[in-house]
Amino acid sequence: MAATATSPLATPLPILPPVKGVRLAAVEAGIRYHGRDDLMLLVLAPGTTAAGVYTRNACPGAPVVWCRMALAKSPQARALLVNSGNANVFTGKAGEETVNQSAAALARFLHCPEDEVFLASTGVIGEVLPAEKIIKALPEAIAKLDSDNWAGAVRAIMTTDTFPKAARRETTIGGVPVVIQGMAKGSGMVAPDMATMLAYVVTDATLPQGVLQALLDEGVQGSFNSITVDSDTSTSDMLMLFATGQVANPPVTHAGQPDLGPFKAALDSLLQELALMVVRDGEGATKLIKVAVKGAMDDAAARQVARAIANSPLVKTAIAGEDANWGRVVMAVGKSGVPADRDRLSIWMGGVEVAHKGAVVPGYDSSAVDAAMKKPEITILVDLNMGDGAACMWTCDLTHGYIDINGSYRS
Amino acid sequence: MAATATSPLATPLPILPPVKGVRLAAVEAGIRYHGRDDLMLLVLAPGTTAAGVYTRNACPGAPVVWCRMALAKSPQARALLVNSGNANVFTGKAGEETVNQSAAALARFLHCPEDEVFLASTGVIGEVLPAEKIIKALPEAIAKLDSDNWAGAVRAIMTTDTFPKAARRETTIGGVPVVIQGMAKGSGMVAPDMATMLAYVVTDATLPQGVLQALLDEGVQGSFNSITVDSDTSTSDMLMLFATGQVANPPVTHAGQPDLGPFKAALDSLLQELALMVVRDGEGATKLIKVAVKGAMDDAAARQVARAIANSPLVKTAIAGEDANWGRVVMAVGKSGVPADRDRLSIWMGGVEVAHKGAVVPGYDSSAVDAAMKKPEITILVDLNMGDGAACMWTCDLTHGYIDINGSYRS
Repeated sequence: MAATATSPLATPLPILPPVKGVRLAAVEAGIRYHGRDDLMLLVLAPGTTAAGVYTRNACPGAPVVWCRMALAKSPQARALLVNSGNANVFTGKAGEETVNQSAAALARFLHCPEDEVFLASTGVIGEVLPAEKIIKALPEAIAKLDSDNWAGAVRAIMTTDTFPKAARRETTIGGVPVVIQGMAKGSGMVAPDMATMLAYVVTDATLPQGVLQALLDEGVQGSFNSITVDSDTSTSDMLMLFATGQVANPPVTHAGQPDLGPFKAALDSLLQELALMVVRDGEGATKLIKVAVKGAMDDAAARQVARAIANSPLVKTAIAGEDANWGRVVMAVGKSGVPADRDRLSIWMGGVEVAHKGAVVPGYDSSAVDAAMKKPEITILVDLNMGDGAACMWTCDLTHGYIDINGSYRS
Repeated sequence: MAATATSPLATPLPILPPVKGVRLAAVEAGIRYHGRDDLMLLVLAPGTTAAGVYTRNACPGAPVVWCRMALAKSPQARALLVNSGNANVFTGKAGEETVNQSAAALARFLHCPEDEVFLASTGVIGEVLPAEKIIKALPEAIAKLDSDNWAGAVRAIMTTDTFPKAARRETTIGGVPVVIQGMAKGSGMVAPDMATMLAYVVTDATLPQGVLQALLDEGVQGSFNSITVDSDTSTSDMLMLFATGQVANPPVTHAGQPDLGPFKAALDSLLQELALMVVRDGEGATKLIKVAVKGAMDDAAARQVARAIANSPLVKTAIAGEDANWGRVVMAVGKSGVPADRDRLSIWMGGVEVAHKGAVVPGYDSSAVDAAMKKPEITILVDLNMGDGAACMWTCDLTHGYIDINGSYRS
């Protein structure tokens, strides 16, 4: 893989203090990369509850299959083991064996049931991931476990990422302070249809599994399910949320209870921040694009229009060229498959109305729009003027960098 | 628009003799381009029957709306007027006026009903197309009408095309010789959901409108509806078929009658040749990719899988990089939304089996595949091993050229 410059849209890694009940380690297992850590181990306090959402891709990797099964069997988690460089996808029986052996080995070391061990792999598809390399690295990883090791862990899960991605929130449940802290990786093959590439979020709060899963299912909609880099849905997408139960907040029994409001808002905001980091690191990205659609027949229709715009190669290359080519937005609205009336359609590019109800705005002067297009963050707003449905999607531009990265990923 | 080198996949323009009942002219109307013809007039003998398929984009251009209406009103055609450089799309009332005035002016010159005049425009979206420029150029166009003017006409309809596209077949109906000859344009914004960019086919045969339309509806499936350049469905797509009735073949009353077999086969083959020319001229294309899917539950499922592969930016950049990255094919199969079983999936790249029933083939040696990937035409074959459904799609690779062309189309 060619060395790639850091995305111009990168955000700095925040300070990541320890979270009660969480210890992490990063080691070099030599799976594919050399001279960098490629295996991350995250160990959770006994009694930690877990929730997860996984890719809807019909050809998921062996680790995704394992995690779905493990979560179905047990609501608890003791460990998460993530390698980078090899996705262990489409590796048949050998891939399953690697997962089984890795989970069994880690469970033995930690004296926990196998179905409390979660696994993830990202990287190249179709190459067998050798279990020996993973298992051989486990003793060193366990020896290095430390509550203050977040930054190293975040870096160990990166593949084509050009910057490490993590976020933190401090909030309360029933007046008791709790924290939420998480990491993500992802850069290409990003059009999650349920989760994203990989993202792991922990809280020290005490939350039953059912509540945790409900919070995650809802939070993913406005975050990881609202981003796309290239319309390609990965075989390895996975988002998990763990609650270590180290803080004795008042008991929570359902996701809708009022004193969970601040926690829910903080979680949603953290998930969106992580998801947008993935877009900011979209392969070759130079612009972060927010596509906002309103006036659709319903929210689902708005979402479909927003997705069609956000996935359009022609819209994305125009933004890369700083060209307010709103004609391509019209095209994308029209191809989205939802009802649209050309003569009601209005479009704003970078905050400037360019088209009003089916035609260019009278006396259209491109200078204001041209200036807006030079900014690193661009909003495309479309009003269908047909109803109350609204939705947002985030994407990035399509540039030479994307071609460079993906035309030679394996060489 | 930057000058662009001819596609390395270009095919030479064939010899295009006159077709009985067809005269053509190409003139410079100065709509957008300078120093080249940008207006094409094709005049048909009285009594010519017409059939058409048009874009399913919900925001079609004013000319598409006009043609649909004209075809619904009258089964006959006397003229086709096509300009390049301005699509007359999303131009509101002004766009409709341009269409109405252009059609009325041409009908007056030709002494024919307005609804026997067909119009098309491609190029930039959202700019008003001035009717005066069109109308002013009509006398010169009419004066230049000639049956031996195909090559000039084909060139006049080009926009971002890097080579002119036309094809010819000689066939028979009931033993009587007839010809079919047609032209196409298109290079980007190509994912027809009914027709393509622009394609016009004429025959000197005598065929009623209903038969013509049935033949076209069927022929478009395996040709223009089976290609994609960038997944973006144009607002201007249009394919029309005209029969001038200058050859007295035995009467034809329905599309399925046996003596129409050779004509149907010739038409299907010509439509596919034209459609593949559009892919060969896909913006930035260096490889023609055929995606063949078999073993799906039914043909529709196979088509959906083929489309997901053909539209995947990651598959297309891999092919651009001559990388047999079949893991991305697995991803695309999985995201297509149709039932697939990873452990039954087999994949061939460039004729070499790389994955067999869910895993890389034993002893996989990449050298044979690597050699195949260097060729200009690559076939990706996927066997889902679940049923008898099969389908083909054609696309091109995604290269720096695509970004170059589309990042600065309007500048």
